[in-house]
Amino acid sequence: MKVIAFTGMPGSGKSEAVKVAREMGIPVIRMGDCVWDEVRKRGLELNDENVGRIANEMREKYGKDIWAKRTFEKIDPSWDIVVIDGIRNIEEVEFFREKLGKDFTLIAIHASPETRYRRLMERKREDDSTTLEKIKERDERELGWGIGVVIAMADVIITNDGSLHGFREKIKDTLSTFLAPPEEGKNENL
Amino acid sequence: MKVIAFTGMPGSGKSEAVKVAREMGIPVIRMGDCVWDEVRKRGLELNDENVGRIANEMREKYGKDIWAKRTFEKIDPSWDIVVIDGIRNIEEVEFFREKLGKDFTLIAIHASPETRYRRLMERKREDDSTTLEKIKERDERELGWGIGVVIAMADVIITNDGSLHGFREKIKDTLSTFLAPPEEGKNENL
Repeated sequence: MKVIAFTGMPGSGKSEAVKVAREMGIPVIRMGDCVWDEVRKRGLELNDENVGRIANEMREKYGKDIWAKRTFEKIDPSWDIVVIDGIRNIEEVEFFREKLGKDFTLIAIHASPETRYRRLMERKREDDSTTLEKIKERDERELGWGIGVVIAMADVIITNDGSLHGFREKIKDTLSTFLAPPEEGKNENL
Repeated sequence: MKVIAFTGMPGSGKSEAVKVAREMGIPVIRMGDCVWDEVRKRGLELNDENVGRIANEMREKYGKDIWAKRTFEKIDPSWDIVVIDGIRNIEEVEFFREKLGKDFTLIAIHASPETRYRRLMERKREDDSTTLEKIKERDERELGWGIGVVIAMADVIITNDGSLHGFREKIKDTLSTFLAPPEEGKNENL
């Protein structure tokens, strides 16, 4: 089984990459869902405060790779391929690398800060008080959790400063290389 | 004036990128030379221990961007373009971004850990007791200084997992975009 994890800074296009994976019929596990499961299991309300608190409490108690471990348990062994969304620190990467060796691939999506800030400003919703300052704070929070190290240590980096179409094609091409090859006789024209 | 800084993990191909810049006639300033200048100024021997100690002492005393400031002073104002080699932390990036705005471009060179480790093992010299363990320690040291954050915040990422020739072409193409366009009438075939 091939396990592919996507990582990237806010506004890099990570969510779009995950969307392309879903459209290709690839199962996706959101690491955040494991935190939600735990919050629900404890009978707590699903809000940002509880989710953030439980996520950190569990990391402190069981190690920085606890959410990678929980995510790994969610993988259906019958799957040929799965995409994992939400890697945040290098300990999670190391957990998957130890478990899966060459069957694990970490893909970082990268766009320049200029591109990301423009996207995030354009994307802001009516109910959202997004400012450049808040966007930069979010960057710093993610970098503080260690996402820079994760990007530096990625197996593959896909850049996303051009068109949405071009980016989606790059993601499709990359994911296709992990899919089982077509059966013999079906690709004689290649 | 365009200022281009290269960054990258050990074995990524950063030195090769700098070499391409030199071959194109672009002046290069090594941030490490500023540390060497300081070590010499103090009448100390130029060895790893003194260089490392002075580099850190000065960072603690004058701020994490001290070597960026010293490097900036070395830029000849008559140059149209200059390449800076050796960015290590985000404070140095912020110094250049504040000073130069859009005239500063941070280019990160990226290769997968697998590619980098293979290259570094192949590159080891006779007098070098390189082991995979030591290579990983060096990675951790660079990541500890904050190079992951620098890579995450790069303006451009150039990947280097394929051929040397292909990589050199990518660097040439990228650097060419920063050079002054040819005079009018000289490029009528384009």
